[in-house]
Amino acid sequence: MNELAAVLFVNQSFYEAFKSRDMDTMEKLWARNSPVACIHPGWRALTTRDEVMESWRDILASDGVPDVSCRGAKAFLSGETAFVICYEVIGGGVLVSTNMFHKEDGDWRIIHHQAGPCDLPSTELAEEPHGETAIQ
Amino acid sequence: MNELAAVLFVNQSFYEAFKSRDMDTMEKLWARNSPVACIHPGWRALTTRDEVMESWRDILASDGVPDVSCRGAKAFLSGETAFVICYEVIGGGVLVSTNMFHKEDGDWRIIHHQAGPCDLPSTELAEEPHGETAIQ
Repeated sequence: MNELAAVLFVNQSFYEAFKSRDMDTMEKLWARNSPVACIHPGWRALTTRDEVMESWRDILASDGVPDVSCRGAKAFLSGETAFVICYEVIGGGVLVSTNMFHKEDGDWRIIHHQAGPCDLPSTELAEEPHGETAIQ
Repeated sequence: MNELAAVLFVNQSFYEAFKSRDMDTMEKLWARNSPVACIHPGWRALTTRDEVMESWRDILASDGVPDVSCRGAKAFLSGETAFVICYEVIGGGVLVSTNMFHKEDGDWRIIHHQAGPCDLPSTELAEEPHGETAIQ
């Protein structure tokens, strides 16, 4: 598997963990040896691993957590760091997201996530089997 | 100057170029040898250098471009890549942003920018002389 395909696979694993409320996998996907941060839609930035994990624990445990599906994922590589831009179809709306990854002991791990509202209608985003579309 | 201070300096230069509508500097601040992307608030993602530069050219040339000020910038380093999280006080509102940087021929250059709305009131964000606050 080339590096960009590996990054897209980890990106997809993040959305699978989100969708299935799997906090153990979510926790494993985030880096341990690099600083991490997270910006949920509308929130102020969370800038420590403890804050980020606590936010995901709350979101995944919440009764109101909507179904999420990742579309149009595109990966970009810069050395040992990569980022993916993708769209999240969530609760009838569309968010646009950046997910950043860094290589840790040979595995790509998430170091940052930012999601925010987007004017793209969900009807423009075709269903994809694995959320993998483009490698740049 | 250490690496994180250097990244924060380039981040601040980005906001100075934005504020002063200096397209030449804006153009120089973005990487040439790495793929670049940009997500303006509410927009769909721009994923080529040409699209990104065209968007900045349009924004900086627009009569309605609001005054922007960067607050609470915090830098994170992962090898040859870094990212800064900061708040943009713009047109009376607050946006939260991620700016990603990669080292190119010894200089930090922007590879990605995402800005989105944030619930933080601008009154909570103190005026700072250089937008540099925290290095992690």
